[in-house]
Amino acid sequence: MRASRYLIATQKETPNDAVVISHQLMLRAGMIRRLSSGLYTWLPTGLRVLRKVERIVREEMNNAGALEVLMPVVQPAELWEESGRWQQYGPELLRIQDRHDNAFCLGPTHEEVITDLIRTEVNSYKQLPANFYQIQTKFRDEIRPRFGVMRAREFTMKDAYSFHLGADSLQETYDVMHDAYCRIFDRIGLDYRPVLADTGSIGGSHSHEFHVLAQSGEDDIAFSTESRYAANVELAEAVAPTGERPAPSKEMAELHTPGQKTIAALEEAFGIPASTSVKTLIVLGETEEEGATAPLVALVLRGDHDLNELKAEKLPGVASPLQFAPEARIADELGCGIGSLGPVGLNIDVIVDRAAAHLADFVCGANKDDYHFTGVNWERDAAISRIEDLRNVVPGDASPDGHGTLEIKRGIEVGHIFQLGTKYSEAMNATVLDENGKEQVMTMGCYGIGVSRVVAAAIEQNHDDAGIIWPEAIAPFQLAIVPINMQKSAAVQQKCEHIYEALTARGIDVLLMDEPKARLGAMLADVELLGIPHRIVVGDRGLEKGNVEYKGRRDSENQAFSADQILDILLEKIPH
Amino acid sequence: MRASRYLIATQKETPNDAVVISHQLMLRAGMIRRLSSGLYTWLPTGLRVLRKVERIVREEMNNAGALEVLMPVVQPAELWEESGRWQQYGPELLRIQDRHDNAFCLGPTHEEVITDLIRTEVNSYKQLPANFYQIQTKFRDEIRPRFGVMRAREFTMKDAYSFHLGADSLQETYDVMHDAYCRIFDRIGLDYRPVLADTGSIGGSHSHEFHVLAQSGEDDIAFSTESRYAANVELAEAVAPTGERPAPSKEMAELHTPGQKTIAALEEAFGIPASTSVKTLIVLGETEEEGATAPLVALVLRGDHDLNELKAEKLPGVASPLQFAPEARIADELGCGIGSLGPVGLNIDVIVDRAAAHLADFVCGANKDDYHFTGVNWERDAAISRIEDLRNVVPGDASPDGHGTLEIKRGIEVGHIFQLGTKYSEAMNATVLDENGKEQVMTMGCYGIGVSRVVAAAIEQNHDDAGIIWPEAIAPFQLAIVPINMQKSAAVQQKCEHIYEALTARGIDVLLMDEPKARLGAMLADVELLGIPHRIVVGDRGLEKGNVEYKGRRDSENQAFSADQILDILLEKIPH
Repeated sequence: MRASRYLIATQKETPNDAVVISHQLMLRAGMIRRLSSGLYTWLPTGLRVLRKVERIVREEMNNAGALEVLMPVVQPAELWEESGRWQQYGPELLRIQDRHDNAFCLGPTHEEVITDLIRTEVNSYKQLPANFYQIQTKFRDEIRPRFGVMRAREFTMKDAYSFHLGADSLQETYDVMHDAYCRIFDRIGLDYRPVLADTGSIGGSHSHEFHVLAQSGEDDIAFSTESRYAANVELAEAVAPTGERPAPSKEMAELHTPGQKTIAALEEAFGIPASTSVKTLIVLGETEEEGATAPLVALVLRGDHDLNELKAEKLPGVASPLQFAPEARIADELGCGIGSLGPVGLNIDVIVDRAAAHLADFVCGANKDDYHFTGVNWERDAAISRIEDLRNVVPGDASPDGHGTLEIKRGIEVGHIFQLGTKYSEAMNATVLDENGKEQVMTMGCYGIGVSRVVAAAIEQNHDDAGIIWPEAIAPFQLAIVPINMQKSAAVQQKCEHIYEALTARGIDVLLMDEPKARLGAMLADVELLGIPHRIVVGDRGLEKGNVEYKGRRDSENQAFSADQILDILLEKIPH
Repeated sequence: MRASRYLIATQKETPNDAVVISHQLMLRAGMIRRLSSGLYTWLPTGLRVLRKVERIVREEMNNAGALEVLMPVVQPAELWEESGRWQQYGPELLRIQDRHDNAFCLGPTHEEVITDLIRTEVNSYKQLPANFYQIQTKFRDEIRPRFGVMRAREFTMKDAYSFHLGADSLQETYDVMHDAYCRIFDRIGLDYRPVLADTGSIGGSHSHEFHVLAQSGEDDIAFSTESRYAANVELAEAVAPTGERPAPSKEMAELHTPGQKTIAALEEAFGIPASTSVKTLIVLGETEEEGATAPLVALVLRGDHDLNELKAEKLPGVASPLQFAPEARIADELGCGIGSLGPVGLNIDVIVDRAAAHLADFVCGANKDDYHFTGVNWERDAAISRIEDLRNVVPGDASPDGHGTLEIKRGIEVGHIFQLGTKYSEAMNATVLDENGKEQVMTMGCYGIGVSRVVAAAIEQNHDDAGIIWPEAIAPFQLAIVPINMQKSAAVQQKCEHIYEALTARGIDVLLMDEPKARLGAMLADVELLGIPHRIVVGDRGLEKGNVEYKGRRDSENQAFSADQILDILLEKIPH
């Protein structure tokens, strides 16, 4: 592409309304423009990237045996009523009426449409498994669209839906999709993790989110330093410390702690490390009969650990959703404020976190205001009802799969694979005849990639002060040719044109900065802002010495290469 | 693609609700499925064709220097209010409200969005001309969606918009687009005509429609047998007959014609050929002052010709829109019924069609009920106020460009290029600074292709009783390999797999009919219905003789080719 025939549309100023770096850089690099809240036009540079992501997704979905279809954006209400989602979905579902007052919605997802299609087209187990995908425009009427295309209302998504007779077949396709997703993000060139995810209210046995690791992510991801293990921090198991609990070495003693009601206050006043104290949280237990008063339950964690509410509320004997006991009831039944609680002498269930249960000679509240105990030891001084995993993992914890330790980083969810089970197929009566001619409800999986979000996530992970740093596979251009005084120098022009033509002919995406009167500094700034992985500068002074200047986007210095050999050098550096 | 891993989804029965052949065949061939009125899901086979059309369109638009962008489906009402179309557009524009009660529409077209973008991004004449396109989902809430994807509500369109300083630059880009469209439809392999079109109410100087010629078309297209001239019948000029008008050879005489009030009745009763009589139509003329009674004007055509109202109402002196005079007024002022009118002795303006003006010794009404004149001659017997082109062209007319004669066929509009002028740029204040630093309103062109409609039009033009006959360039598969008893014969399997792998590796789209238990007849019927251009049948009996059967989709007979050479033969026959 010649810049003179292109719309570069870069901007120097960072737009006021753009908070995250990808939003800022996509506007500044002329990739997108805002049309309205959560609605963006993709300019040529942005679209080039989007299409490259699409192509990789398409190729890998095809390789994985999925068949591409294209379903409408506009969907009839009847199907959503069949599945029950017409009522369940909130205002994110944009409901519309056509000229005949029939109800439709703009599709935020296509489970209903594909299930309707497949229940008609697929009648026999012989046609299963089947997996259909589309790369298509979705609409979700977000209450606060933000972060540019990261959380837009209209966006491009790859969504796939698989159909099966039974769970085993679903698991097989699920695994194939898992691998395809890994290949997709590998090819795009992102640092990502397939993350065990909560299946939420939909149920279903398995779900993985694919997260691109980046500081601006909205989720905390725990992952192993040595294996592929990764999980949302909420879901990552905190394994028990290895070895035996140390033997008691101190006597239990009372400590006067006036006004010290937190772990941090104790640490400051007495130099007691948080990791050697425990905190005791009182929550409501399960009631045995409806209407009965819920019993109190104590949850005990190491002072430096945080309660994981999701884990706690899943425990037998603990009310779900988790409810902390009112302070008045604690004072009444346990005789102290919440800052002085401890497990010693409690006559309620005491569920102890695995790490807290491994402590010896620890510090805890004395169940008496303004007093703590030191030198406390389990069993000798305090009873344990059960030992459970109650806490969020922290960096340095052992990885639950036994390989390496955990790191925690923020992640941007760009993909999600999900075993749906029979939620839709049952509601919509999507059945096939099995080997015995008996009707069976199909089992389903669904598999999404936020194609437009991938573009933003790639920038969140790959940028510096000068702009974007594209992974090679999705760069809008792979090479920028920057001429100095191309209009005046036949030698410069000839060299640039020659390189441009030769590389373009080999399918490499080259941007030739051929605009007359463009200043060198401005061109170089544009090339860096655009994030083009390779650039060369061609000028008379260099050519006189037989040289052309090369710089990779991540290089700190220019490098002079022989003008005669530059073509071969570029062909070696640039994938094609 | 292996049939065993594909969704062929062919149907034997012609669906009841499908009227036109392309709709029937797209359903039967498993290309599309109806989701709701005017909403279709593209199944794998249909989408393969759609994507091939898209690719050709994209390549030629890029070659023509247009830049691809992607604009949202959902558009804010404000922009449509700026252009005035929010009020002007009827219920075809689907208006919606988001969760915050802001008004939006589903885009039937994108003039407003692109003009808004360009007025911000383009500020200087140096950035012009510029031409942007997208291949994108459109929505028009048709009152009666019909003919499948031919007139759907949601459809895929390529729309392009160009911006210019002045009409000359617009004309240049318009010509470039005209040529690009020709290349697109040439490459797709359709018999089409770029047709001079009416610019309608939008004004603008030039417009061409691109029509695929097919019996089911909704428009009548007149085109030259020898040149590229083509026009909507409504717009095609009927040129004057060559040579002098023959000299009078008969005396004028009155003929008693009781009850004969039409050309057809005269022809039947007296054997007077329609081509030797004239018909006289009385319309209202232009009033000189507002409120004054419109004068009557006579329009005279040859008996076998039809009035072209569009031409008539454009004439000076004739009211626009065209209004026929009330019968009562004709009786009152001209003294007879409309079945007895003629130009002899009329004291109003008599505008005579070029062909009628060339007649001698003709027959016409006598302006007296139940009487006609024979042997009438212009000037001697009847005065001519003006000679004009008043009629629709008919087959055999001379082409207006002087080359060949006209044929008339039905056409399906698949593309439209249009010189918009400043309609949108003026309303939305889209200006640039010219060479003198003065603000100038940009001139615009727009260029559309109904991508999904092209698929249907290709079928309308190319089918037979057995199914679709795809042009090579957009066939879902180029070759079908049909094995006989592949499961039982290692030789058949080996041969099929070898050909499949070798051709697939060269980028040829091959469908291997590898479904176990598929009957030969059913497979062959599917291959014909699907319209695959080439097919081979591989069976043990043929292989024993060293043969493989080949049949092109338009061939009537199978041909036996050497099994050893079949690969080379196919590589020669199939473009790749």
